[in-house]
This record gives sequence, structure tokens and C-alpha cells, in this order.
Amino acid sequence: MTTSTALLLADLTGVAVFAASGASAAVAKRLDLFGVVFVGFVAALGGGIFRDLVIDEVPPLAFADWRYAATAAVTASAVFWLHPQLARLRTTVLVLDAAGLGLFTVTGTLKALDARVPAVGAVVIGMLTAIGGGLGRDLLTAEIPVVLRREIYAVAALAGSIMVVLLSALGYAGAGGLTAAAVLVFVLRLVALRRRWSAPVATMRPPETGLGRPPR
Amino acid sequence: MTTSTALLLADLTGVAVFAASGASAAVAKRLDLFGVVFVGFVAALGGGIFRDLVIDEVPPLAFADWRYAATAAVTASAVFWLHPQLARLRTTVLVLDAAGLGLFTVTGTLKALDARVPAVGAVVIGMLTAIGGGLGRDLLTAEIPVVLRREIYAVAALAGSIMVVLLSALGYAGAGGLTAAAVLVFVLRLVALRRRWSAPVATMRPPETGLGRPPR
Amino acid sequence: MTTSTALLLADLTGVAVFAASGASAAVAKRLDLFGVVFVGFVAALGGGIFRDLVIDEVPPLAFADWRYAATAAVTASAVFWLHPQLARLRTTVLVLDAAGLGLFTVTGTLKALDARVPAVGAVVIGMLTAIGGGLGRDLLTAEIPVVLRREIYAVAALAGSIMVVLLSALGYAGAGGLTAAAVLVFVLRLVALRRRWSAPVATMRPPETGLGRPPR
Repeated sequence: MTTSTALLLADLTGVAVFAASGASAAVAKRLDLFGVVFVGFVAALGGGIFRDLVIDEVPPLAFADWRYAATAAVTASAVFWLHPQLARLRTTVLVLDAAGLGLFTVTGTLKALDARVPAVGAVVIGMLTAIGGGLGRDLLTAEIPVVLRREIYAVAALAGSIMVVLLSALGYAGAGGLTAAAVLVFVLRLVALRRRWSAPVATMRPPETGLGRPPR
Repeated sequence: MTTSTALLLADLTGVAVFAASGASAAVAKRLDLFGVVFVGFVAALGGGIFRDLVIDEVPPLAFADWRYAATAAVTASAVFWLHPQLARLRTTVLVLDAAGLGLFTVTGTLKALDARVPAVGAVVIGMLTAIGGGLGRDLLTAEIPVVLRREIYAVAALAGSIMVVLLSALGYAGAGGLTAAAVLVFVLRLVALRRRWSAPVATMRPPETGLGRPPR
Repeated sequence: MTTSTALLLADLTGVAVFAASGASAAVAKRLDLFGVVFVGFVAALGGGIFRDLVIDEVPPLAFADWRYAATAAVTASAVFWLHPQLARLRTTVLVLDAAGLGLFTVTGTLKALDARVPAVGAVVIGMLTAIGGGLGRDLLTAEIPVVLRREIYAVAALAGSIMVVLLSALGYAGAGGLTAAAVLVFVLRLVALRRRWSAPVATMRPPETGLGRPPR
């Protein structure tokens, strides 16, 4: 298996995993078959479409290569029919989702650097590629994006995209370094899930002090 | 009347119809005059803006040709002032909306093919052009997009965009074939409305079985 | 201080002010530190990213110049830690927000004209640049966009973008004229806030007359 075949397979795995997460959310909202496939599509490909628009790679890969849309549609349909079984596979989905997060972080950041986006911009684009699909999924299902509320998710992606930019600047952005960055995101995400790590929340100091609350 | 004049008139009719649907939703949410016009603008032009960004036709037609923005703004304003009468015209609006859906499906798919997007991508872009405005309308008014929840809507657009791509591949994408594709979408949508067709919903097999419900 | 330095400083001031508004909204929704920074980033840079995509200036300035992302991130973090004090500075924030609105209206409209977008399109793009960040902020926090519901906000931006296009058409788009347009937006917004001006709302004539309500 060549490197580019490996990359494509890994990329499509990420698409499938995110499609499954979007489809599951849509099933929980009682969307119909089309709605489930559509939300799966957005979750799997939304981040990449945004990335490609921003770096002017048009048409975006999601439309230029049929295998992306097909993978997302088939996976989401499968979730629609199989979701009771998937519910029992929740841990597996979380692990695969973490793997997808790592992968999309690395490819998104690399593509931005290739398009000559400066370092800080590439870091942000890489992170947005990884979390963008989940954002779209939550907007479509009328939720405050989970990624903004819970746990270390985007922060793991951010750490990975910073690592890719640093590796690239130092000339170490080979297969080994990039794999290490993806693994970093993956491990950070899983450890955070396991230990219930979260970024701090400003709960102790409400912005509207005294509005109908007893004085402290 | 030349073909291009006919197409422009048809296109602006679609814009007007979708602007009316967006404005009606905004009035129902008690938005102010500006909000009504804005949501009408997004519903009428959002799908086309997305399409043009994705196929790199910039600035998008909605900004490059003033007649598009003007049609959307005038129609939405008219709805703001006239909406009690429009409420009684509900059937008319649904019929026009189905016509707009058919039209935008055909023009969106054609534009994508012209921009050398491959078949599967063109199908998806054509469908997104047709349903994109309604998605934007529902996101702005904080609803789960109706298009994802009810009835055959996006599926009709999907059937039409597949037909356009097939016609184009076979060399039959002339005026007759394209009109037939638009009529297909229109008829599918109206029949679905009439017979209350829906895509299947996964109601019978809830993902979290047994959560507070009696056993079956 | 040269003109371009002045413009950059003014631009970054606008970014900081909008980042603060987004971060405040995110704190009120109990988002975590990352969520607060992210919503601040979207509020500060979302309008400009949309503008740059539409006029094909890629990568958008928000990614191409690190000072934009850095300003947004630092400001949003500061709000996260300091928000009780900011709550008492509410008037100051509103005034700065009005200043940002004026500035982004002028720069957005100018950039669209520079990219050869016709007049009506440039007016719309200018207004969207100014209000786009706030829209993104409200979508992310699952609110019907405030800009669509309350007060003269987008209308002030619209007046400013029309003025810029007229000045440009007449050959008066120098520093003086542009400053006047920004001041127009600023003053309109503040006067509207002070006098509680609003665009009209269609409250008196509900679209669904008689549905379960007593006859009038």
C-alpha cells in the first residue's frame, strides 16, 4: 500500500466516522432518512468544504471526488438502519471519532500550509477543519455546539495543528512527525474523555451579579 | 422572448418565491422589517451564494447582478405589509415554492457541470442550491430545518439533479430535457404534499430503548 | 502615524470590540474557555471571512495576518477572566460596538468596490461584513440573531454602506468622506439605542388569524 493510498483510506475512515456521529445525532432528533443522511454529510464533509473554500481549492474535494460523498452517504444510511446496535457501540464510536479528529487536524493544517497560509492562520484552519463538521451537525440539529461546551475536543485539535506547523517550520513534517501529531490529538482526546477533563468554565463569577439572586 | 430572457425571468421568479417563504417565516417569528427582508434575502439567495462560492464564480450572482437582491428585497417587503392576505394564499405559495425548487435544482446542477464538477458533486451541489436558502432561513429563525424533518422536499430536488446529470452525460441537456427535469421536481413535490408522502423516520427503533418507556 | 497604520489600528480595534461582544455572550451561555475564545473569534472575524470569500480574496485576512486572530483570541480570553468588571462597562462596550459597526461597514463596502462588485452588491456585502460576526455569534449560541430582532443595527450599517457607494460613485471616497460614513453609522446606532428606536414589527396583523383566538 503506497503512502497516498494509505492517506486516502485514512481520510475516508475519518469521513465515515464523522458521518456516523452526525447520523446518530439526526436519528436522536427524529429526522427522516434524508435528514439523517444530510446531517451525516455535513458532519463528515463540512469542515473540509470550509477548509477548501478558505484556501481556494475549488471545487472542494467533497464535490470533486465522488468517494467522499459516497462514503458519507453510505455510512449515514447504515446508521439509520442499524442505530440500535450502534448505541451499544458507543465507546467504539468515541474512539473512532477521536481518530478522525486527529487525522482531519493533520490534513487540514498541512493543506493550509501547502496553500501558503501563514503559521497562525494554518493552525486555525487545521483546527476548524477538524471541528467544523461537528459544528455544522449541531447547528442543523439546533443545539449549542457540543464542541463549545464540553470536554477537551477542539483544544486537542488545536494542540495537533500547532504541532504540525512547528514540525513543518523545523523541516520534520514527514510521515513520522505527522503521525505523531495525529496520535497526540487522539491520545489527548481519549485521556480527556477518560478523566473527564474540561477546559475551565466561568461559573463562579456570573456576569450579572445580584440580578434576582441573594447577595454573597 | 429569447431563451436567456426566459431563464432570467424564471430565475427571478424562483428568487421571489423563496424570498416570500423566508419573509413569511420571519413575520411569524415577530422579526422587524429589516429582519423580515434579511431572512427573505437569505432564503432567496443563500443557496445560490453557496453554489457560486463552491464553483468559484465570484462575486456570486446575488451580488454581481442587482436584480437578484432587488427582487428579494421588494418581495420580502411586500410580504411584511401584506402577510394576512398571503396567509390565505398558502396553497399558491406552496405551488410556487415547488416551482422554485425545480428551477433552482436545474440551474444549480447545470452551473456545477459547466464549472467541470464531476457528476456526483454536481448532483449534490444542485440539490444544495435548491434547498440551501430554506436551510439558512430555518437556521436564522432557530428551527431545526424543515427540509430535514418533513415530507419529500430535498429528495425531489435530488431526483431532479440526478436527472440533469444523466441527461447531460447522454447529450440530451437541451431545453426540453431540462424543462422535464424541473417539472419532475415540481410534480414530485406537489404529489408528495398532496398525499403527505414522507421519507421514512426511524421511530420504531429508538436508540435508547427502555429509557422510561414501558417494555413492548 | 500613517494612514495605513491608522486603518490597521482602527480595524484591530473593531476586531477587539466584536471579540468582546462574542465572548460576553459565550460566558453568559456558560461555555468553557475554548468556547468563549471561539465565539469571540467568530464574532470578530466571521463577517470579514465571509466578505473575503465572496470577493475571492483568499486566504481571508483573518487567516493571512496573524494579528487578527491574535487580537480576537487575547480579547476574548481577557473577557473570560474579567467579565464581572466588563458587565459594569456595558455602556462602554455598546459605544465601542457601534464604532466597530461603523468601521467594518466602511472597510467592507470599500473592499467589495475594489474587487469590482457592482453598487448594490457592494452595499449588501458591506452591511454583511459589519453584521456577519454578530450573526455567527448568535447562531453558535442558539439564539435568533439579535440583529434581526431588535433596534436599528443592521439598518445603520446599511445606511453607511449606501453612503460609501454613493461617495465612491461621485469621486468623494477620500479619508474625509469615509470617516463621515463611519460616523454616520456610529451616530445612527447610538441615537437608536438612546431613543430605543426600532424598525417596525408586524405585530398587529398575525398571519394565522382566528386560529384558536377570539374573533376581533
